[in-house]
Amino acid sequence: MYRYKITFAYDGTNFVGFQIQPHQRTVEQTLKTIVNRMAKNPTPPLSVIGSGRTDAGVHALNQVAHFDLPTLIPEKSMMRALNSQLPLDIMVKKVELVDHSFHARFNAHRKRYRYRVRQGEFVDPFRRNYTAHYKYPVDVEKMNTAAQDLLGEHDFTSFVASGSQAKSNVRTIYEAKVWREESSGEICFDFVGNGFLYNQVRIMVALLLEIGNGQRPIADVKRVIAAKDRQEARMTAPAEGLYLVSVDYGESQEKD
Amino acid sequence: MYRYKITFAYDGTNFVGFQIQPHQRTVEQTLKTIVNRMAKNPTPPLSVIGSGRTDAGVHALNQVAHFDLPTLIPEKSMMRALNSQLPLDIMVKKVELVDHSFHARFNAHRKRYRYRVRQGEFVDPFRRNYTAHYKYPVDVEKMNTAAQDLLGEHDFTSFVASGSQAKSNVRTIYEAKVWREESSGEICFDFVGNGFLYNQVRIMVALLLEIGNGQRPIADVKRVIAAKDRQEARMTAPAEGLYLVSVDYGESQEKD
Repeated sequence: MYRYKITFAYDGTNFVGFQIQPHQRTVEQTLKTIVNRMAKNPTPPLSVIGSGRTDAGVHALNQVAHFDLPTLIPEKSMMRALNSQLPLDIMVKKVELVDHSFHARFNAHRKRYRYRVRQGEFVDPFRRNYTAHYKYPVDVEKMNTAAQDLLGEHDFTSFVASGSQAKSNVRTIYEAKVWREESSGEICFDFVGNGFLYNQVRIMVALLLEIGNGQRPIADVKRVIAAKDRQEARMTAPAEGLYLVSVDYGESQEKD
Repeated sequence: MYRYKITFAYDGTNFVGFQIQPHQRTVEQTLKTIVNRMAKNPTPPLSVIGSGRTDAGVHALNQVAHFDLPTLIPEKSMMRALNSQLPLDIMVKKVELVDHSFHARFNAHRKRYRYRVRQGEFVDPFRRNYTAHYKYPVDVEKMNTAAQDLLGEHDFTSFVASGSQAKSNVRTIYEAKVWREESSGEICFDFVGNGFLYNQVRIMVALLLEIGNGQRPIADVKRVIAAKDRQEARMTAPAEGLYLVSVDYGESQEKD
């Protein structure tokens, strides 16, 4: 068997999420169907293992998955074969033949997420599926300052949605940044961490927006983390603003 | 009765076009339903008159329409009332109370259309509904040079799709420009004219792309115009790249 690592983008709008759910359109099932067709539909079917799930409406710029095939297909040919069969809302950007020690989920080292917020009185029709809409004024610099309190290793129990199956809520955030993108005018939030809990990024963004709008003091990030209570961070920002930007497998043996 | 002029944007992806068609989702019907609801559904129903139709999948940044209501509602309140009832793929950007001599279709003086083309080997999932995909190399400068031959008054019979109900195929183009947008890398085609025939912009773009790719000489624009034969300009660029940018009602009494 040959192991293929694929890096791919998807528009999450018309998927109920990454993970397979019966009778629903998911990214995982869409990939799995094509990979199995390429292998002439073996029994049992081949699996496609993603780096992790994304929710309904959440997008990916560089999601990663792996699968095994009994045939050796050159990387470029595999990329073309996949893209020629995939629907237009998924695009494979890179294919790599990798060692069997590579595992898209277990070896994921760091992930980068971006969240996009658009202001203005009304929702822009062309950005409705690609940004969250927030019509109140916000102080971007204040949000960026507050975000720095998320850095480091913390118990993020205050930032996990019910339904999480994580054994531990301790995660490390390496980078947190909030800025206004010049070309689009959109507010971007970037977070790099060793993993994120269910809805963690969307809950962090909602808290930062409340700080940016002056509904909460900057110091609330520290207080909410310390509380370890989901009731403290009340809101969850909507799915459509969220992008999985990249998954890092620590190839460069960075030290943390 | 009070006459309201509205300027609005829409994402054409999920509409079968602007113009009402039975049992189909159209921009005109969506607006008409809301306007009639505001007037408590009179018999006969009120009409919403657009500046002109756009096809399925074609977008608008500033489409214009007018309608009459028996009640006087301040412009800002009308804008909020419409946006609060419209689906998120239509957004009203401006409301103006106008004289009864204003007619969105008959008084339209000039229209500006933009066409967006994205290159690259595969379709970008986030731009699939908002640009045409053209994977072959093109010379943008060459297309811009060729486009200048479209300027002026011509019989555009070679550039009209079958199904057109125009009495005359003579139209005037005031501006034609092709450039690569820096921020997106997309190729943009802008055309300003006193009116455009059915599919005219999409046929012009397809011809210019063939010139840009070297399949036709630059001089072909002149030759195809002179031929007055639809067979000469074979292709039609797809709907998803096309935007109605603005409709000019000659308020500034420009001379043509």
